[in-house]
Amino acid sequence: MAQVAFIGLGNMGGPMAINLIHAGHSVTVFDLSEAACQQLAEAGALVAASAADAVAGADYVISMLPAGKHVASVYLGEDGLLARLGTETTVLDCSTIDAETSREVGKAAAALGIGFMDAPVSGGVAAAAAGTLAFMCGGDAATFEKARVILAGMGKNIFHAGPAGAGQVAKGCNNMLLAIHMIGTCEALEMGVRNGLDPAVLSEIMLASSGRNWSLEVYNPYPGVMEKAPASNGYKPGFMVDLMAKDLGLAMDIASQSGVDNQMGQLARDLYTRLQGAGMGQQDFSSVLTLLEQKN
Amino acid sequence: MAQVAFIGLGNMGGPMAINLIHAGHSVTVFDLSEAACQQLAEAGALVAASAADAVAGADYVISMLPAGKHVASVYLGEDGLLARLGTETTVLDCSTIDAETSREVGKAAAALGIGFMDAPVSGGVAAAAAGTLAFMCGGDAATFEKARVILAGMGKNIFHAGPAGAGQVAKGCNNMLLAIHMIGTCEALEMGVRNGLDPAVLSEIMLASSGRNWSLEVYNPYPGVMEKAPASNGYKPGFMVDLMAKDLGLAMDIASQSGVDNQMGQLARDLYTRLQGAGMGQQDFSSVLTLLEQKN
Repeated sequence: MAQVAFIGLGNMGGPMAINLIHAGHSVTVFDLSEAACQQLAEAGALVAASAADAVAGADYVISMLPAGKHVASVYLGEDGLLARLGTETTVLDCSTIDAETSREVGKAAAALGIGFMDAPVSGGVAAAAAGTLAFMCGGDAATFEKARVILAGMGKNIFHAGPAGAGQVAKGCNNMLLAIHMIGTCEALEMGVRNGLDPAVLSEIMLASSGRNWSLEVYNPYPGVMEKAPASNGYKPGFMVDLMAKDLGLAMDIASQSGVDNQMGQLARDLYTRLQGAGMGQQDFSSVLTLLEQKN
Repeated sequence: MAQVAFIGLGNMGGPMAINLIHAGHSVTVFDLSEAACQQLAEAGALVAASAADAVAGADYVISMLPAGKHVASVYLGEDGLLARLGTETTVLDCSTIDAETSREVGKAAAALGIGFMDAPVSGGVAAAAAGTLAFMCGGDAATFEKARVILAGMGKNIFHAGPAGAGQVAKGCNNMLLAIHMIGTCEALEMGVRNGLDPAVLSEIMLASSGRNWSLEVYNPYPGVMEKAPASNGYKPGFMVDLMAKDLGLAMDIASQSGVDNQMGQLARDLYTRLQGAGMGQQDFSSVLTLLEQKN
């Protein structure tokens, strides 16, 4: 079992760190929120007074932070964690951030001989608590093999997407595609319903046909079609519009930096931004259906 | 076994009529093309001199025609087929046409006490030949039950979408959604590849994640990922850009007539129209990937 330092104990990081304790690892945590640290202490973690203190003697450093600027500030520079780590430490940043920052931290780590992977997750708070997250990893093969052991304590599907930054790219691609087929599914169902079709019957037809997609399969956006979907519970998240809008912003950066003319992705971003502007940022992302209803 | 009149022996109608013969039905055919009629005669059909002659004594009349104007002209008016049929006949129009015309023919048939269903198909020429088409049917429950027996000779999944016109609506919704997730899949894969990811690895990750959709599952648009997909065979169809553009035009009519703000569907239509304009109408519809490549 390993010595793990865990930095960032938010809605995702908290339950992830708890699962590492349950998996038998020795976990030292740090977060700016005392309440979050307290909760982890009760679950069996050691609480450090700073990120720097937390990583002392760690085999693995895992971070779960809100944005690229936090990740850069935690790891880089003279006061950053990388400067304090030995080459035996493996660094796994599970934050969903811009691919550029992941590559930059990866490069700085490589220059010091430290193994680094960006390993953003998919699955949300429920999967974090259940230990069924998916990890999309960017780093070299040796680091991926070392990481697998630890990530297995927090998730199920652990993918090696490519070199540093590739985890962020894979997540950006996946979530952009998710937004696109969610909106497409809403448009198709709304079109059917306005023409007298039953949304459940139309869903069944498209599921058995070439329209099939994840949104139809497990997350039907039409109220009443799927009992456990957020659409049937007042669009209570699930996966918030704010988070989807964040992910789409990151995906747009990836696309524009690499010259991809992703018009569908751009339209998805515009629609989710409009949904935020309508005050629905805290609703589930399948509530994009209501945009179609409001417009007419 | 039934007496079937089959009108319209094109790329789809021809093999569909042949499968009805193989299913043991007595099939009388008509098409303006003598060559098409000749082929069916060799397969065991009786060839009639006109559509009117073909339907004499038929239990079922099945048509497979290019557009709404052909369907209206064959069935409606003093010289139309409906005027020649008794109430014991069931009419199944398998053409993919505008929902308005299907409703109009359905209404005219109902006024005469004749059972009518629009029953557009999904699956393309290969499924027509293999007898594995999907049928999306619009009509009343009694007509649907009568139709099932016959349609089972030509297809596998037979869906009752709703009243007359609902088959066209369901197909329009499904194919619009297909176009949207195909384009979204192309954007995601192109974005990944330009950032150094292997399209096969990225496809595998998204298939196991929330980006999953039919295009990724069975019709990967990136050359080399899926051996049997059109993308790996020079985008030889498959399902032609011209046909997808036609279906998207019909879907836009359905959306605008019912006031649905389907922006993703409109963008899909625009992109497929642009692909036609670039001379790629005869290519497989997954070749929309090349639009992203050309733009940069």
